[in-house]
Amino acid sequence: MTKILRIDASVRSTDNSVPEYNSISRALADSFVDQWKQAEPNVEITLRDVGMNPPDFISNDWIASVFTSESDRTQEQKDIVALSDTLIDELDHADILLISTPMYNYGMPAALKAWFDQIVRINKTFTFDLARGDFPLEPIMSGKTLVLLTSAGEFGFAEGGPREGSGHLSAHIQTLRKYLGAERMFEAAAEYQEFADQRHEASVAAAHARARDIARQLAP
Amino acid sequence: MTKILRIDASVRSTDNSVPEYNSISRALADSFVDQWKQAEPNVEITLRDVGMNPPDFISNDWIASVFTSESDRTQEQKDIVALSDTLIDELDHADILLISTPMYNYGMPAALKAWFDQIVRINKTFTFDLARGDFPLEPIMSGKTLVLLTSAGEFGFAEGGPREGSGHLSAHIQTLRKYLGAERMFEAAAEYQEFADQRHEASVAAAHARARDIARQLAP
Repeated sequence: MTKILRIDASVRSTDNSVPEYNSISRALADSFVDQWKQAEPNVEITLRDVGMNPPDFISNDWIASVFTSESDRTQEQKDIVALSDTLIDELDHADILLISTPMYNYGMPAALKAWFDQIVRINKTFTFDLARGDFPLEPIMSGKTLVLLTSAGEFGFAEGGPREGSGHLSAHIQTLRKYLGAERMFEAAAEYQEFADQRHEASVAAAHARARDIARQLAP
Repeated sequence: MTKILRIDASVRSTDNSVPEYNSISRALADSFVDQWKQAEPNVEITLRDVGMNPPDFISNDWIASVFTSESDRTQEQKDIVALSDTLIDELDHADILLISTPMYNYGMPAALKAWFDQIVRINKTFTFDLARGDFPLEPIMSGKTLVLLTSAGEFGFAEGGPREGSGHLSAHIQTLRKYLGAERMFEAAAEYQEFADQRHEASVAAAHARARDIARQLAP
């Protein structure tokens, strides 16, 4: 049975009375899951909704706690890292990481960055050894697949596009994915949301088709 | 009298009992301010410490509130945007924006992104008009100067470096700066923190010298 960890980062739901206010990225994740279930009805899906319930920001005490060995941690320090422990366990358990997220201000929503800041952690998701020279960090997890489903108000962030170099959402997650143990990454992106025109409709439709294609390709 | 808005994003302070735990980015901002005061002792400095006091994450209600015209906002909606109003007023008031920030996980700390998500706001920091075609957003503020002082654990994020393309801190802020009204941007970056070696010492020293140079250049 495949284990999917679904992380939704939009602050919007999919059941607004005004359909235009519905989250596009969440709807893409729904399409992916719907398609997957046609191949594997009993797939195990864990939802971590950082859009509706953002993780805590890390703090100085958080850093001090994660750099304290587990056996030496005070109860207070254990409490501080409890959320991080839970989030990392969810990640560790999953085969497929399904991240649905809007682009907010040319990058990740702060809540999604807060999730990454909680899970990129020494001796949990990476080891650190200066004997490795100029690249002392190595990921601990492996073998996972990341599916990134995004929605943007603007368009043209890809190479050769009119906003090339201004999109810091997918590129940043591409850099971070090794700490998730994600050896493969697939993407679908809806664009043009703020234009509310035919291009937007076509882009959303194509992103849903792409999300379903990815599910078809990956599902057993 | 110059008005500086200083935004500190590190979760670390500069008065730890173990000096190695002190924030490097905050210390760089201290050097900048110290140098500036030599030219202009009565410079006005406003501190917005997002590292110690992170702004709220934006929410669905926040988006609904900012898209409601000011006169139509309920008291609840006014309360929801009150922090954003304050942060934008601080920004609007400033001539110089001094952002000191560590690179966390190859990008902004979540708390700094939360600040950007609070201040990039329709009819406050940008206007939106589809009559402008494919680029409907235009910044409202102008004439400001951004000074970005950063610290990273790793090194070599610049063009030609061994981690080219993996640094999403400065590049992201470069994209966002127009919404801050920042027409000029100056940078100093300390690197190599996790190596704790001679390269780190040299990099921190060079970054302090660069921060002071920028202050010398910009101060009246």
